Amino acid sequence: MTEPLAPGALIGVLGGGQLGRMLAAAASRMGMRCRVYDPDPNAPAAALAEHVCAGWDNDVALDRFARGLDACTLEFENIPVATLRRVAEMVRVAPSAATLAIAQDRVAEKAFLNEAGVDTAPWVPVEDIETLRAAIQRIGLPAVLKTRRLGYDGKGQSVLREASDAGAALEAIHGAPAILEGFVGFDREISVVAARGRDGSVACYDPAENIHEGGVLRRSSVPAFIDADTAERAQAIAASIMGSLGYVGVMGVELFHLHDGRLLANEIAPRVHNTGHWTSGACAVDQFEQHIRAVCFWPLGDPVRHADAEMENLLGDAAETWPALAREPGAMVTLYGKAEARPGRKMGHVTRLKPRF
Amino acid sequence: MTEPLAPGALIGVLGGGQLGRMLAAAASRMGMRCRVYDPDPNAPAAALAEHVCAGWDNDVALDRFARGLDACTLEFENIPVATLRRVAEMVRVAPSAATLAIAQDRVAEKAFLNEAGVDTAPWVPVEDIETLRAAIQRIGLPAVLKTRRLGYDGKGQSVLREASDAGAALEAIHGAPAILEGFVGFDREISVVAARGRDGSVACYDPAENIHEGGVLRRSSVPAFIDADTAERAQAIAASIMGSLGYVGVMGVELFHLHDGRLLANEIAPRVHNTGHWTSGACAVDQFEQHIRAVCFWPLGDPVRHADAEMENLLGDAAETWPALAREPGAMVTLYGKAEARPGRKMGHVTRLKPRF
Repeated sequence: MTEPLAPGALIGVLGGGQLGRMLAAAASRMGMRCRVYDPDPNAPAAALAEHVCAGWDNDVALDRFARGLDACTLEFENIPVATLRRVAEMVRVAPSAATLAIAQDRVAEKAFLNEAGVDTAPWVPVEDIETLRAAIQRIGLPAVLKTRRLGYDGKGQSVLREASDAGAALEAIHGAPAILEGFVGFDREISVVAARGRDGSVACYDPAENIHEGGVLRRSSVPAFIDADTAERAQAIAASIMGSLGYVGVMGVELFHLHDGRLLANEIAPRVHNTGHWTSGACAVDQFEQHIRAVCFWPLGDPVRHADAEMENLLGDAAETWPALAREPGAMVTLYGKAEARPGRKMGHVTRLKPRF
Repeated sequence: MTEPLAPGALIGVLGGGQLGRMLAAAASRMGMRCRVYDPDPNAPAAALAEHVCAGWDNDVALDRFARGLDACTLEFENIPVATLRRVAEMVRVAPSAATLAIAQDRVAEKAFLNEAGVDTAPWVPVEDIETLRAAIQRIGLPAVLKTRRLGYDGKGQSVLREASDAGAALEAIHGAPAILEGFVGFDREISVVAARGRDGSVACYDPAENIHEGGVLRRSSVPAFIDADTAERAQAIAASIMGSLGYVGVMGVELFHLHDGRLLANEIAPRVHNTGHWTSGACAVDQFEQHIRAVCFWPLGDPVRHADAEMENLLGDAAETWPALAREPGAMVTLYGKAEARPGRKMGHVTRLKPRF
């Protein structure tokens, strides 16, 4: 067992968006220093960390970034695997390139989940119109066609309701390699944000119940409207996934809770997760500190929650409601320091605490 | 009434110690940018903010610091008043130079408090051995001799138990201008961390009960062991002091609670305060965000607390207990990123939450 990194250590974060910004803030609370790598000169995390600003394929910059780091992690899963491998030659990186490769490809992800004994919606890989038609035959309709790679927040997806939608659906994703997933009738979407330490210890936050709109998360609340047994099963699924991967860090696992009580894994995110933002304020150790703890060989924090909470994303113009939110008792407002409020862009979030007096 | 500063504004902080660091983190959560001024190249806040590193009398650097700021504040009260005045010519600064002048001089501070109708221990200014002897006659013994200026954390103080201690006490403070304060028999030390907005609104956190050792704060806990009436009187004193000063920002007011129930003001700190660190984790809006809110014309946050809490300072080597603290359920560990753990130096703190289930 490696010794925990002492305060003063330099932690690298690949990606400098809002998740990187909140990771940097957590690292700072732990007395750590932080260096982020992001091609965007206005990356939100750059305000709280040293910033190496270069493209993902810039080996010179990557070496400069990695040099002197005591540990390295990432804040989004679509970093090129080759980039991660290059950095991993110089410093220990968590999560691993192997995990990243799985999370970047919906087919690899679903295959991994099923092999690990985790149920998913039925799925079939799609290459072209012939394999799509065969997939429809096998899975039935309605179904959803998703690109294998680089899909997030509802982008790169197309719903098929009739067999005649096949051509248009394939065109909508520009004929990219894809996966067809069967629609499942579900009660609710939940997620487990969980952490696994270098020593194999696991800590799961309470499952959150999530509302998506247009493929983008709008709200997460705890407790989810599920019974204790379901919550335990959800947490066991997250623990099992992390164990199968030999995972280190925080992971978000999205699940569908079906009418018959079954849980199907929808997707995994090998990083801190939007549905875990409520932990800041409702837990002594939030998901950001938890992730840095895991990466730094620290013991995981107690994931117990001392309040009920609801987190609402502030998308695009919604961030302009900050003056009203600032007046609202019990509301914790977090803004990400992004200059441009494009429609649907995640600009901040508000967490409303409902302490259990 | 001035409009609240929108996210993206640039906030200046004079002083880059741990308080500046936690102010910068709070400003970042609000989507603000931060610039600190500190002569120390290793200032803890520099990791989370732009850093102008120069001496307090460097007018060129001060002008560079002030240029482009939307608002400015400070994290410690011993910044030269001339420095604050220079910056205030370019940007609105809170608290004001007038408040700073009062907080820097124990005689001015006590005179101000008494004029504002706030009781203190008996006190007399001391210039030399003659005025000290006269002061002892008037106040009685035991008493404590303190330098008028630059005293903090128990430095620059000397206790007199007998009249014959006078010479040695004066020598101990190198004959600096001083104040003799009578010892008062008190039950407990409490403090009120409170905020006043630009619009005159006031928000007081619950009074904390404080344990000092060797003049340095060891622990603060809420609730203090006082009745509701005493808590209200303490908060009213803080509100009255801030009102008299036309104060903007967070202030710490230290009070003695006497055996007979009276409250005497000990000192005021025109800044976020060590005895308010528990608010991070126990309140939706902590003292650091509250201070930035006041400085930025935002509405003050609700100061209600959702948990009981105890904050313990990690002084010097005590910070090396972080591995044990990291394993303790419910403990929130904050480390300040200081390299050198000199004896008694504030290296971090731990807040233990006791949620009121």
